[in-house]
Amino acid sequence: MHLKNLTIKELKLLADEIRSELSSIMSRTQRSFKASLAAVELTVALHYVFHAPVDKILWDAGEQTYAHKILTGRRFLMPTLRQKNGLSGFTSQTESEYDPFGAGHGCNSISAGLGMAVARDIKGKRECVVTVISNGTTMAGQVYEAMSNAGYLDSNLVVILNDSCHSLHPKIEEGPKTSINALSSTLSRLQSSKSFRKFREAAKVVTKRIGRGMHELAAKVDEYARGMMGPLGSTLFEELGLYYIGPVDGHNIEDLICVLQEVASLDSMGPVLVHVITEENQGSEHDQKRETEEKQQEGLSLNGTRSFSYGEHCRTYSDCLVEALVLEAEKDKDIVVVHAGMEMDSSLQLFQERFSDRFFDVGMAEQHAVTFSAGLSCGGLKPFCIIPSTFLQRAYDQVVVHDVDRQRIPVRFVITSAGLVGSDGALQCGAFDITFMSCLPNMIVMAPSDEDELMHMVATAAQIDDQPVCFRYPRGALVRTDYPICSGTALERLAKEKFLLRAKMLLYLGMGQWFKTVSKLRPFFPSLALMSLLLMQDSASLLTSSFSGSFAIVMPF
Amino acid sequence: MHLKNLTIKELKLLADEIRSELSSIMSRTQRSFKASLAAVELTVALHYVFHAPVDKILWDAGEQTYAHKILTGRRFLMPTLRQKNGLSGFTSQTESEYDPFGAGHGCNSISAGLGMAVARDIKGKRECVVTVISNGTTMAGQVYEAMSNAGYLDSNLVVILNDSCHSLHPKIEEGPKTSINALSSTLSRLQSSKSFRKFREAAKVVTKRIGRGMHELAAKVDEYARGMMGPLGSTLFEELGLYYIGPVDGHNIEDLICVLQEVASLDSMGPVLVHVITEENQGSEHDQKRETEEKQQEGLSLNGTRSFSYGEHCRTYSDCLVEALVLEAEKDKDIVVVHAGMEMDSSLQLFQERFSDRFFDVGMAEQHAVTFSAGLSCGGLKPFCIIPSTFLQRAYDQVVVHDVDRQRIPVRFVITSAGLVGSDGALQCGAFDITFMSCLPNMIVMAPSDEDELMHMVATAAQIDDQPVCFRYPRGALVRTDYPICSGTALERLAKEKFLLRAKMLLYLGMGQWFKTVSKLRPFFPSLALMSLLLMQDSASLLTSSFSGSFAIVMPF
Repeated sequence: MHLKNLTIKELKLLADEIRSELSSIMSRTQRSFKASLAAVELTVALHYVFHAPVDKILWDAGEQTYAHKILTGRRFLMPTLRQKNGLSGFTSQTESEYDPFGAGHGCNSISAGLGMAVARDIKGKRECVVTVISNGTTMAGQVYEAMSNAGYLDSNLVVILNDSCHSLHPKIEEGPKTSINALSSTLSRLQSSKSFRKFREAAKVVTKRIGRGMHELAAKVDEYARGMMGPLGSTLFEELGLYYIGPVDGHNIEDLICVLQEVASLDSMGPVLVHVITEENQGSEHDQKRETEEKQQEGLSLNGTRSFSYGEHCRTYSDCLVEALVLEAEKDKDIVVVHAGMEMDSSLQLFQERFSDRFFDVGMAEQHAVTFSAGLSCGGLKPFCIIPSTFLQRAYDQVVVHDVDRQRIPVRFVITSAGLVGSDGALQCGAFDITFMSCLPNMIVMAPSDEDELMHMVATAAQIDDQPVCFRYPRGALVRTDYPICSGTALERLAKEKFLLRAKMLLYLGMGQWFKTVSKLRPFFPSLALMSLLLMQDSASLLTSSFSGSFAIVMPF
Repeated sequence: MHLKNLTIKELKLLADEIRSELSSIMSRTQRSFKASLAAVELTVALHYVFHAPVDKILWDAGEQTYAHKILTGRRFLMPTLRQKNGLSGFTSQTESEYDPFGAGHGCNSISAGLGMAVARDIKGKRECVVTVISNGTTMAGQVYEAMSNAGYLDSNLVVILNDSCHSLHPKIEEGPKTSINALSSTLSRLQSSKSFRKFREAAKVVTKRIGRGMHELAAKVDEYARGMMGPLGSTLFEELGLYYIGPVDGHNIEDLICVLQEVASLDSMGPVLVHVITEENQGSEHDQKRETEEKQQEGLSLNGTRSFSYGEHCRTYSDCLVEALVLEAEKDKDIVVVHAGMEMDSSLQLFQERFSDRFFDVGMAEQHAVTFSAGLSCGGLKPFCIIPSTFLQRAYDQVVVHDVDRQRIPVRFVITSAGLVGSDGALQCGAFDITFMSCLPNMIVMAPSDEDELMHMVATAAQIDDQPVCFRYPRGALVRTDYPICSGTALERLAKEKFLLRAKMLLYLGMGQWFKTVSKLRPFFPSLALMSLLLMQDSASLLTSSFSGSFAIVMPF
């Protein structure tokens, strides 16, 4: 890490180099690094000011960390990103000592960082703990729990809000000033306010004189920034107990280093939030061009003409689901769709465009999504709640007790990305859903083995209106892509019987490998719930492979 | 419901009657109704202004709803509260049409209410949706997710913050101005501010003239309240997108009705938050006397002299756990305890008093608690994370993926109130933990069958420092209360083998009934994970009985 000896100019050059490197990898691997491109200067400044790995730098979302990975000795491994035996898409303790904690589902870094800060205080050490959160993750409740507790415990902790205005939903980026929730609109109001621009000018003047008495001046910059903000967004964080500093231009390395050094030098200050504004489109021209192309492609595939050849992308289970949902929603006006999770599958836009008033995307707020669906159901609607398997874990209590299963409220859970998820890695693996859903007393658990069954299950779920239902399907392509779409018919509902030993079952196995494992063991298992647990255990052991299994279960309780 | 025809004076009388009725039930049943006593006037005012069951009134925490239950035709059933076949301690859809949604774990009412409001808008109906939250539940992240989404969707929704300053932790009530997190201290600052007192005086003047032009005046009251508050606590809610009104004195029925009528009469206003201040100790003298006695009793039992006879209370597993933890913590300076959940078991105070700097109670923020523990562990400490089984569900994703199991971080989960929980009812039942913990690849799952084993398991958990461990124990008393406490010895860790079919196991069954069920089925099950699922399924079917099972599993993966 000879980064420390560089001048500001050299740091800028370094940032540009990293950016072009990222862009070139991006064009080769067909992956979007936008969030990381936006955070390049921030990453350089963080590593300049803080002394990783002694100081802990925690990230919230994997997508922001690629510049961090390049700076921490993983440059030559970058082309292997998200490949088998290659670099993880997220931070990982096993990968580098510079990754003090794994980041994957977002929203965990403040909690983990606070834990490390408290442990440091108890152990009598003095290193800094820095956590970087993004405006995407400010939708998740855990962030508020953590900030509130940090404000109470008052340990030294630097929280950096990397406000990249990187909306997780492409539609919102294009459209007018919509925002997914009220807080993010507060943030964007903040960003566009005059005081922010004024601050940037003022900061420039100040940082020019930075040679003499840097520390004092930095303190002034800080005061200045704070004084100007007024009650727009700062008070939210102040009321949760964090000392608010910002907003700071996230592409001005001088400003960033100035503010961060100021923050790092303060002792016994309690938790501090630095609000950094970054822009997504700081990429190279090449990058922007590619993006436009992508959008055009997407546009084509979403115009409802399903005859589109899908380019290199094969038709997926998600496409099928959306088509089935549209068919059902045309027949039944009560059907509404609630979506939660980090990213929205682009195929869902078809439904969103057709029935915009019956589509709710709540972002990274899974707990809310489930209870919200239960409320919709109580209000007489028929909600389909679409959540990736791995994120449904975050709403487990809401599914189990609050709100759905115990009260036997008919919410239809669509569990996407179930099972192994290929290049998304172990962190996003949806291995556990069958187990944790099967054990609920009122839940019907289904999984289709092909697209026909998926259509039938959508129809079944739409019809069942006296208890919760879920069905899960894997990420990835269908086998028969050219199959014509026809409306599903509801599956027969088997008579309610004593669960154990006598449950009737349908069991299809989609893939050879699964079949081998399962068929050997099948005679041992008197009930399907036990069987599904077995399958799950097995899939956990297969985590590292990129195999994505699918199998079908219709389980009556 | 001839409530509507009563005058303000009669309403006050009614409130007093309800209060004395609640107090008398409270003294008979030995239960604390403090939260409900504080909300009596609020409940009366709500039912006066809104037209339940057409208008939906949702509650967040069961403890607040007893006055509501009395007013909605369940008065004569109140003595059966929390008894078998009696009234539930929570709201319940099956119990009354006046309970539109079940409340149990707290923090769900805004999400559910928002769902109902949106469904109402889609269906073209016009009823009001009112949700009551308490300051206890403002610790939970879901509340922020829901408020933020409500601010964005902008449906008409009335949120009432019943700020009873009813700290969930008795210690805090007694002590000086501590608060469990920064937000609740903001709320108490709000309450004690001059503007609140001023508002009360101003409101009195206004409400005196209420005969003529009530509507206009009410609007002024509203404006006045808003104008005076400044940026103390109101902006937090405003930034999340809710229109803030308050604070309002929660024991002044006139004020309450005035503000609520104002709120109810507004159309297309979006979500509104009414901040109502109530006081816990509005009970009768009798009540307060009893409370003092209780505290004295508690004080006795916590002075470390374990020879105390426990009065009518038998010695519980929790008492054992805390004794074992204290013994371990004396030997090992790295042991820290993190507690989350609605209420803290009073036996934990023993640990808190002995090692106050190594005890963290985060309140109703389970997600944060788990990740925080992971952070503590990364910082070199040995965290024991104590969460009731039913609330651990809320942190499932944090346990599974973020942060503990996938990263193989040694966090020790102490799962309390596992299995059936008697009078706490189905809602707090911890039936699912064995299943959802057993399926995790790195987790060791244990359950003691008696206090000796519990001691050994605490010692085992303290010793295992390379993977996560959990052990669960039921609510309720021990069989041998006079057993001397001695330090546990770590259990032997069996060699890691292929999980399926060959896992070695220890299995103890504590109770005869369980034994009968299990011994019959045991030959069928090749592995313990499958066995535990079975047990869990069985316990789900026993939900309504008050039987509390315990059994022991030591499961090596």
